[in-house]
Amino acid sequence: MKIGVIGTGGVGGYFGSLLVRCGLDVHFLLKNDFDHVRHHGLKVDSKNGDFAVKPINAYCKTEDMPVCDMVIIALKTTENSILASVLPEIIHENTTLVVLQNGLDIEKDLSEMVPGAAIIGGICFLCSSKVGPGHIRHLDHGSIRLGEYLQDQYAVGISPALRAVADIFSRAGIPVQLTDNITKARWEKLVWNMGFNGPAVVLNATTHEIINDASSRGLVYGIMEEVVRGAIACGFDIDAEFPDLMMSATRRMVDYSPSMRVDYAAHKPMEVESIYWRPIRIASGHGFEMQKSQVIAYQLDFLGNSLKEKFEPQIGGAI
Amino acid sequence: MKIGVIGTGGVGGYFGSLLVRCGLDVHFLLKNDFDHVRHHGLKVDSKNGDFAVKPINAYCKTEDMPVCDMVIIALKTTENSILASVLPEIIHENTTLVVLQNGLDIEKDLSEMVPGAAIIGGICFLCSSKVGPGHIRHLDHGSIRLGEYLQDQYAVGISPALRAVADIFSRAGIPVQLTDNITKARWEKLVWNMGFNGPAVVLNATTHEIINDASSRGLVYGIMEEVVRGAIACGFDIDAEFPDLMMSATRRMVDYSPSMRVDYAAHKPMEVESIYWRPIRIASGHGFEMQKSQVIAYQLDFLGNSLKEKFEPQIGGAI
Repeated sequence: MKIGVIGTGGVGGYFGSLLVRCGLDVHFLLKNDFDHVRHHGLKVDSKNGDFAVKPINAYCKTEDMPVCDMVIIALKTTENSILASVLPEIIHENTTLVVLQNGLDIEKDLSEMVPGAAIIGGICFLCSSKVGPGHIRHLDHGSIRLGEYLQDQYAVGISPALRAVADIFSRAGIPVQLTDNITKARWEKLVWNMGFNGPAVVLNATTHEIINDASSRGLVYGIMEEVVRGAIACGFDIDAEFPDLMMSATRRMVDYSPSMRVDYAAHKPMEVESIYWRPIRIASGHGFEMQKSQVIAYQLDFLGNSLKEKFEPQIGGAI
Repeated sequence: MKIGVIGTGGVGGYFGSLLVRCGLDVHFLLKNDFDHVRHHGLKVDSKNGDFAVKPINAYCKTEDMPVCDMVIIALKTTENSILASVLPEIIHENTTLVVLQNGLDIEKDLSEMVPGAAIIGGICFLCSSKVGPGHIRHLDHGSIRLGEYLQDQYAVGISPALRAVADIFSRAGIPVQLTDNITKARWEKLVWNMGFNGPAVVLNATTHEIINDASSRGLVYGIMEEVVRGAIACGFDIDAEFPDLMMSATRRMVDYSPSMRVDYAAHKPMEVESIYWRPIRIASGHGFEMQKSQVIAYQLDFLGNSLKEKFEPQIGGAI
């Protein structure tokens, strides 16, 4: 059983290292960190105890990688364009794809890219980020909700493929919860992501800074309510009290800089398309306008554009 | 005919100086700039030609001021709490109040404060700001729309009091336009103010920076459309193409930092209540939720609160 990992950041680096540690045969496709990780392995500072995995199977080219029985996709969605060339090189006809990404309809893209593959969506409840080459800092939580994706997006039951992925993660000590409705679970995750990620960037604030101010709390709460209404408009029956649950969970969680704020601070592209615009468009297609989320998405795009102007080489500049 | 001016910033300093220059008997109530202005007068750098007015009648106490026949109120609305004590000291029963402020229902507050006074609302199309003590920089435009306020807020015709104020401003060379519906005119001004002021603060951008980026332009346009719908819900028939007019006017206007951004940069209170929350509440009372504007208002309040924490002395701090 060979497991591939594409994307070795806060998510893929953390879960991938846990899989290696429990003795599984894991193969990492790396880009910038390839040289470092090949020589030094991966290092995880975790609230559950620090550990390192070394040696590990590190690759910078798909040609060198073995064909895998399971591929974990843990890239930022902003890099998903590489999947169309990468995936066909490392999968066989029964490979299971496990998508540990934020946003909506990620599985749908993959099913169009690799028709017929079993696709398991995973939603991570994890506070973790890469703090250096091959160096992951795990701050809090660490569980995954897993569900199988089928074309109609609705409940599909618990399939053998889903059960198999769950067993592997469980063996590595990762708390796993199964869902028969991955798209509903994605909407639930969006309640948090749309509520906190964008405002954290625009207001330059952490989760606790946001929660401790009545105005930003009102802002985030209003967005969360809107996401619930968006999900309901799309046929996913999320409880009206879900925003309250998310608020109190975040209050209990460690003070946190959401991933989008980390990306923005590092001048990296933000996942505005998958976390904001896609749900906004899908809800709009069902007759519901997510107006508050639109404001945030436009603001994020403006901030992202401004970064590009400042830090990317200008085309046609002075010779 | 004695004219009082309360608030000698970009608006009151500019128009007040024009009134002095044409020979009218004008009396300025000052706070921080009193000493400087008493000795050096007012200085206006204007795109129409620089000028200075000196000596001028400057006061720091209402007791020293004469009773005025017309009082121009050009404070930031965040300082309006002083009016209840200031106004009764400097008006007689036939004084006309001229309110050159942003936002909604300003005239209503005054009519409750000084029952029976003639209240003229003025909406300034003016790019001007105070750049130092008694020193005004006038960048663009400079006209005023004037209309009389009556309790029912709807069309009231052109009264003798309104005509008199218009004559005085015209005599000073200020382009004046009359409206029989000041509250509708305030909603029209809000299309610009709600569209540009908040986003300029949150995105830290000037008008042209906002207009030249498709995302921020989309943001501002969406807010403007919402303001038009809010006005219509309240019974004011603003043309659906008004946002387009505002956009193209702003494009032609000098690149500008809206007043709220100037205030924020100077760590001064922003007019979030009068420019955002009031229209939001009034529209909500008419069954229309201004959701986009709410997002902006919450963000502005958060940013304002953060400033306060950083720059204001803490109550109960270490002794």
